[in-house]
Amino acid sequence: MQYPEPIAKLIESFMKLPGIGNKTATRLAFYAVDMNNQDVMDFADALKQTKENLKYCSICGNLTEEDPCEICRDKSRDQSTILVVEQPKDVMVMEKIQQYHGLYHVLHGVLSPIEGIGPEDINVSSLIKRLQKNDEVKEVIVATNATPEGESTAMYLSKLIRPSGIKVTRLARGLSMGADIEYADEMTLFKAVEGRTEI
Amino acid sequence: MQYPEPIAKLIESFMKLPGIGNKTATRLAFYAVDMNNQDVMDFADALKQTKENLKYCSICGNLTEEDPCEICRDKSRDQSTILVVEQPKDVMVMEKIQQYHGLYHVLHGVLSPIEGIGPEDINVSSLIKRLQKNDEVKEVIVATNATPEGESTAMYLSKLIRPSGIKVTRLARGLSMGADIEYADEMTLFKAVEGRTEI
Repeated sequence: MQYPEPIAKLIESFMKLPGIGNKTATRLAFYAVDMNNQDVMDFADALKQTKENLKYCSICGNLTEEDPCEICRDKSRDQSTILVVEQPKDVMVMEKIQQYHGLYHVLHGVLSPIEGIGPEDINVSSLIKRLQKNDEVKEVIVATNATPEGESTAMYLSKLIRPSGIKVTRLARGLSMGADIEYADEMTLFKAVEGRTEI
Repeated sequence: MQYPEPIAKLIESFMKLPGIGNKTATRLAFYAVDMNNQDVMDFADALKQTKENLKYCSICGNLTEEDPCEICRDKSRDQSTILVVEQPKDVMVMEKIQQYHGLYHVLHGVLSPIEGIGPEDINVSSLIKRLQKNDEVKEVIVATNATPEGESTAMYLSKLIRPSGIKVTRLARGLSMGADIEYADEMTLFKAVEGRTEI
């Protein structure tokens, strides 16, 4: 005897998600059986609508229901700064701190020679075109992750954009707030010393 | 700025699953955006069908698409034995080993005075009625988990059923296959000594 078909299919679907193996998928599927009916229907609808109603903004590459996205349409935002991130979710993370009021550009990846990802595989050319078309932009802040790939992508963008006279900056590296020097890794400590500021 | 509505709803839905917090839910929701369209639609359909097409078997309480379930309908199975489990997924686990060919009964829980779960909250009365109606049954195997709640549910069922002359047994306790005595917990070792068998 096998699992009833709907359960078997649901387990299969859960297993397609990252970090979810057979046991977890089975547990989640059986949990879903006992969930409130409305919650399960809402879940199914949210999945469908995510695919049907979301697109990428043709200007910045962010996820949006309307093209161009809310941020690109908002003329009250600082049009002179573009913050470059790897993924759409990074835009939301930046927006949450409510300290940045400029525009965004989403790369949808980072350069990674090992995985064979070059500049043509990520949203670089659209960023360059955007900078060429729009001479209001004075600064590009590269906010890629502090990983080797993120760092090299930042260096690549800097070399590409600097000749046009636009300032290219990156997020500060250093100790996280609340971090204990004893437990900080060497690279972080090195960057924190290198980037020390006067008090 | 907030997450686009479909994403926000999807995050909310993922968070209703056990063991999935805000960060994981966000990661899964953004992963779903980039998933193959067909996979997402299949996922949504599987969720809906799980709710729409699955019911509990009116005889044994197992999850099924048709009532009575495949196992209860199968007259070639040993009608003289009923194996009692806590959850529908335990039925599938037992079926996988292909060594048990009798019938099942799913309690949908265990007795737990702390959580206020008494015999009337789980599928006990239907089991008793089933035994009264059907004098073919010669043995009830209680396969609840080896937890305090599982154990006390087994004792309760044994006391309830034994007077009718039906044999009540439970799964053996002892070392797991491949287990190292050094790392076995005391209770398991105790049970293994107590239940020792002649070789």
